[in-house]
Amino acid sequence: MSEEQTDIAPEPEAAEDDAYALDPKTIASIVYAVDVSDRDKLVELLDPLHPADIADLIEQLNAFDRMRLIRLYGAEFDGDILTELDEGIREEVIGILNPKVLADAVRDLDSDDVVDLLEDLEEPQKEAILEVLDDPDRIAVQQSLTYPEYSAGRLMQREVVMAPEHWNVGEAIDFLRNSDDLPDQFYHVILVDPRLKPVGKVALGKLMGSRREVLLNSITDESFHVIPVSRYEGDVAYAFNQYHLISAPVVDETERLVGVITIDDAMAVLEEENEEDILRLAGVGEESSLSDSVIATTRQRFPWLAVNLVTAVLASLVIAQFENAIAQLTALAVLMPIVASMGGNAGTQSLTVAVRALATRDLTGSNALRVIRREVVVGLVNGAAFALIMGIVGLLWFGSAQLGGVIAAAMVINLVVAGLAGIGIPIVLEKLGVDPALASGAFVTTVTDVVGFFAFLGLAVIVLL
Amino acid sequence: MSEEQTDIAPEPEAAEDDAYALDPKTIASIVYAVDVSDRDKLVELLDPLHPADIADLIEQLNAFDRMRLIRLYGAEFDGDILTELDEGIREEVIGILNPKVLADAVRDLDSDDVVDLLEDLEEPQKEAILEVLDDPDRIAVQQSLTYPEYSAGRLMQREVVMAPEHWNVGEAIDFLRNSDDLPDQFYHVILVDPRLKPVGKVALGKLMGSRREVLLNSITDESFHVIPVSRYEGDVAYAFNQYHLISAPVVDETERLVGVITIDDAMAVLEEENEEDILRLAGVGEESSLSDSVIATTRQRFPWLAVNLVTAVLASLVIAQFENAIAQLTALAVLMPIVASMGGNAGTQSLTVAVRALATRDLTGSNALRVIRREVVVGLVNGAAFALIMGIVGLLWFGSAQLGGVIAAAMVINLVVAGLAGIGIPIVLEKLGVDPALASGAFVTTVTDVVGFFAFLGLAVIVLL
Repeated sequence: MSEEQTDIAPEPEAAEDDAYALDPKTIASIVYAVDVSDRDKLVELLDPLHPADIADLIEQLNAFDRMRLIRLYGAEFDGDILTELDEGIREEVIGILNPKVLADAVRDLDSDDVVDLLEDLEEPQKEAILEVLDDPDRIAVQQSLTYPEYSAGRLMQREVVMAPEHWNVGEAIDFLRNSDDLPDQFYHVILVDPRLKPVGKVALGKLMGSRREVLLNSITDESFHVIPVSRYEGDVAYAFNQYHLISAPVVDETERLVGVITIDDAMAVLEEENEEDILRLAGVGEESSLSDSVIATTRQRFPWLAVNLVTAVLASLVIAQFENAIAQLTALAVLMPIVASMGGNAGTQSLTVAVRALATRDLTGSNALRVIRREVVVGLVNGAAFALIMGIVGLLWFGSAQLGGVIAAAMVINLVVAGLAGIGIPIVLEKLGVDPALASGAFVTTVTDVVGFFAFLGLAVIVLL
Repeated sequence: MSEEQTDIAPEPEAAEDDAYALDPKTIASIVYAVDVSDRDKLVELLDPLHPADIADLIEQLNAFDRMRLIRLYGAEFDGDILTELDEGIREEVIGILNPKVLADAVRDLDSDDVVDLLEDLEEPQKEAILEVLDDPDRIAVQQSLTYPEYSAGRLMQREVVMAPEHWNVGEAIDFLRNSDDLPDQFYHVILVDPRLKPVGKVALGKLMGSRREVLLNSITDESFHVIPVSRYEGDVAYAFNQYHLISAPVVDETERLVGVITIDDAMAVLEEENEEDILRLAGVGEESSLSDSVIATTRQRFPWLAVNLVTAVLASLVIAQFENAIAQLTALAVLMPIVASMGGNAGTQSLTVAVRALATRDLTGSNALRVIRREVVVGLVNGAAFALIMGIVGLLWFGSAQLGGVIAAAMVINLVVAGLAGIGIPIVLEKLGVDPALASGAFVTTVTDVVGFFAFLGLAVIVLL
């Protein structure tokens, strides 16, 4: 790898004006229209916006403006805005909406979007929405809700375009052109055997570009993945990303085709999983969002801080063993946080790489030992470098070569331990079925704090006192 | 938000056996085939695997096995494996490949994949690959390389399916069916005006389901986004994710259609950006991967550790001001890391939420003040809770109510400062054009360390001594 590649990427035109619909001026005009209750103006301003942008806007307003905007916007409120909203805000908005507007909004949605909406609602709101649906829609939604949460069954669309495996291109095209109710968005025709088991898929572009007499099963996509209805959505997203899938058929326990998942749904899941990983690594509840209340936010963050308090007290107990040494040589108290802090940072580096590699399935049994060895050697090399630096700092600052030597030795020990703990703890947690993103941080910093203080103060007692 | 929602998500069948192609048994069989140089067996084992899985396998092997596998696999080596490989490993593999095999592998690739391949190679390897391409391909690749790195121009495919805006469905279908060279994968027909400016797009499914006399411009997709060729790829990925795009036309400065970007490319960029954010937050070079060497890894991690050393020394300088106090009351040395550590963790929580919200564009001028206020109040509430806990711990441990009061007060101060710094520093860095994911961590922990030690030791001097 060349050194240039590790530089920060230049970001061409990252701040281009027209890249996002929601500029501050538009937001200000919308808030003004709400302030003066100018309904025509509000509709005119919101009309050109994508539902996703309107949802973002609603999230960014304070609760009072939000309520006024929704009331003023009235019947124009689109069901798609609801599906784009953050869960917390969504409940609030559903509470504000006029029941008739809500009914119209929900009736316009595809059944998989209604499922997505209902999943996160409290029971009374859920009932209210189910009631406004037409019978067939309600039954489809209720059936989807029987699949486990976070499963492919919840993610899939039920509308599927399929064809018998023995058809040719002409038959498929005639069939499609004579269908009344094709889904709005579909990209493949799924080939099925007589028992409705999917056996391949043909891209629409390929279908269009082939002669009528060509057999469908001779122009199927090279890579074909079938997803069991109970598969975890994170694994579905992984498959889409790994194999560059655009859509994939979903089958039940008897291998019968029951639905199809498209890449946009998979992309949304991937984004959520990444978000979860980042927030879990930082000890923030993964459901957190900017629009959460103070109470919700405080509650989400408290548990991790409580865990951290326990580990910090553990580290303090180590220090307490050396109170006499510190009383004799206060330089120890001055320098000891440096050793712990460096270990904590090095540990976090290893840990983050390990957690990511586990999430992307790059870290497996076959390379784990090699990666552990690498982390330990990296800890040793960086440890030696910083030992030298801190040894000199210790010498110059406190005029004691021995003190410099002690901090240098402690630094090497702690950085090696940091590498080992940073890679080893996530691997062990994964083996135990615990999400490494959630729990590794606390364990790793406990190890580096305890080892850091113990190594530094312990060596100091042996060498200096 | 209900409490249940903050629990860890149950993961149905996360460990299902057939979810991934690369199980340890398959890997072991492949390594064995390489060990005994059984070429037929190796080809038989690798044949059913997707190139992405073969690439993962190659990354997981050690350098020696990797070389042997590639030599044994020989002419079967597919170009798609190259595009799936990590950059670091890719250079190594290209160096191992027989030049004739490399030439065949590269010639099979689409031009945008060749561009992706060349971007990361050193000059001699780049030249070697350009040389084996046919003239038209080489020209297409060289032209793509004239667009800035990380721009839409690098990401797009040049093969575009377009139709004049005034055509009807019948004309479009006849045109498509008579084309010889349709791209393998395309999902929309892009409508253009006489100057080749894109004015809309028609989904293939919609085209198939509409009568022949229907005008194309009456069945265009509701949401239509045109991407300038120079737009930053991160912004492109954001648009795909925000607006659920499947494909989008790319235009040059004169608004002429020059290419198309599809969702799978956008998904790959989104994944890279997320990876970068996570690794930058942890102070790991964003180009890092599990297959990097010890030297590359050490180099990537050193700078952040060096920054951390500076901040740790800064914090130590604060402690050094209070050496007398510590000599008189060593309990201060025991307790002071707790205050700093809690502040650091609370700061990291706020910081992570802020960095993510900036990346997803949920944190804007219109809600920044509200979010800052929320973080400060959360800091105050959690600060008060932990102040109470630590006050009691301090009292019980050291039998001094005053010491308990001092650590309690310092805790409140530091957690409020942590909330403020955690949210404020990323916002300021973003305003200054610095990636907040890259630099915020160091600043925030410096603030919480310095404030933590200063508040605790300073109050101790005033109250206790």
